[in-house]
Amino acid sequence: MSPAEALRSELLRAIRDNLRDGASELARRALDALARYAEAPKGSLDDRKAALLAFADELGALRPSMVAIPNLVSRWRDAVRDFEGAPEALGPFARTQAQAVRTWADGARDATVRASLAQLEGAQRILTHSISSTVLDVLKRLPPARTEVIVTESRPGREGWELGATLAAQGLSVSYITDAQGGLFIAQADAILVGADALLADGTVVNKAGTYLLALAAKDQNVPFWVCAESFKCTTTPAHAFALEERSGSELGPPPVPGLKARNLYFEMTPPRLITGWLSNEPLAPRFAPKGA
Amino acid sequence: MSPAEALRSELLRAIRDNLRDGASELARRALDALARYAEAPKGSLDDRKAALLAFADELGALRPSMVAIPNLVSRWRDAVRDFEGAPEALGPFARTQAQAVRTWADGARDATVRASLAQLEGAQRILTHSISSTVLDVLKRLPPARTEVIVTESRPGREGWELGATLAAQGLSVSYITDAQGGLFIAQADAILVGADALLADGTVVNKAGTYLLALAAKDQNVPFWVCAESFKCTTTPAHAFALEERSGSELGPPPVPGLKARNLYFEMTPPRLITGWLSNEPLAPRFAPKGA
Repeated sequence: MSPAEALRSELLRAIRDNLRDGASELARRALDALARYAEAPKGSLDDRKAALLAFADELGALRPSMVAIPNLVSRWRDAVRDFEGAPEALGPFARTQAQAVRTWADGARDATVRASLAQLEGAQRILTHSISSTVLDVLKRLPPARTEVIVTESRPGREGWELGATLAAQGLSVSYITDAQGGLFIAQADAILVGADALLADGTVVNKAGTYLLALAAKDQNVPFWVCAESFKCTTTPAHAFALEERSGSELGPPPVPGLKARNLYFEMTPPRLITGWLSNEPLAPRFAPKGA
Repeated sequence: MSPAEALRSELLRAIRDNLRDGASELARRALDALARYAEAPKGSLDDRKAALLAFADELGALRPSMVAIPNLVSRWRDAVRDFEGAPEALGPFARTQAQAVRTWADGARDATVRASLAQLEGAQRILTHSISSTVLDVLKRLPPARTEVIVTESRPGREGWELGATLAAQGLSVSYITDAQGGLFIAQADAILVGADALLADGTVVNKAGTYLLALAAKDQNVPFWVCAESFKCTTTPAHAFALEERSGSELGPPPVPGLKARNLYFEMTPPRLITGWLSNEPLAPRFAPKGA
């Protein structure tokens, strides 16, 4: 295997096997991977372009439920495809382009955090589910002395374990609960705030399994349910064509008996009728306009 | 400590610390405890009666969310209180009485199972949550070759682990899922069947945390949500006065950091508007009448 091929395999594996981070963070890591790989291919301009674009396509297909990855990669891809110049100039151009898209994505996250903070002003008890780097950034900027966060465990990965520890270290009060207790604790929350792995064109939110149950309970108890997500989470793929990742059932530690199969669907869809509003860096399609709490 | 006192402490501790069994099974064990303690107190008839009745009261108060215990104990208590005869005849009478109440409770369970089987005829995929000895008896009597059971993990105790293993050993197909995936798998179920720790007078069902979320999802997706419970689970205590057990947060294995508190409410209430029907050994109050799926 050539050094370029080895690097390519290593970069793809790191994204594919990362079950810790949410879609935003993984999409950033995909851009970092594009920057690292940019100068590896050699040969004619066409050879180099073909290698870079193929790598981008592979990155974009790694985590089908996380549309942020193909969306950000595609911003980079268009510029690289249209590049004209000396073959040896393509690599530096592609690297700089990846860094530029990452800078844009960072700005989108910051604007999403600001929009979320403005919406949550005055909320003292916030319930969240799973882990989202955008939600974490929002919660870390709330006044710690008067903010309580209710964090679900989020089985099987228990992303809530790390999120709860991080928030408590920042001085916030954290209540750590099983996913099954979500309906019991929603009554105590001023708002629910979750991230998203994808936003479908009809406003449906793709997020970690368990999100739909919390949205149902929030609606039932008149607690506002907010989704914060950068605009690069949007996709035109309709719900019926959207692929939801299933991971190995062994992550549940099931009874090892014949006739029993552990299922491990990571993501699920929450329909727009259960969502109070979408908080983002830029106005989304009209159907995403907040309806008020 | 006298032998009678030692026995009394041992019997109470066994019920208090049993987190494995549901309300029906624990209520049976309380009757067995009454039978075992019946002949321990000595002295005058009044002394013996006072000791037996005090023990019954303690048993009845051990697990506040499980009304089956005080309900069955109280059937025994009334007979013992009204006993007239020789002091030494009280013990054998109380023991026989405990056995008679247990026999009646067993009959009530069998009738509840029959009513549930009649209702579920034709259902091929059934989703259940937590563990209930009555639900287990129902599922074990369904035709194993054409029945699939979707079993939730039921954190933190993971009662679903044992239930799933037991059902698979009986030849049923079992899908084992996290509590968070309940909303994803309800669409595949023909019916939801859960037990109950208590039935309040307005039809509210007290059961393991997570039941309310599943009932919301079942309603949202038009899947019938059945509760099977013997009539001795009924209580006249209203919802606002009903005590829901909270156990130690350490059962969740939370991050050991200051500022973070793990919460562990075992039970929650599911309102009657989310319940398709109550399956029981005898007609319950009119408000429990099945509304049809």
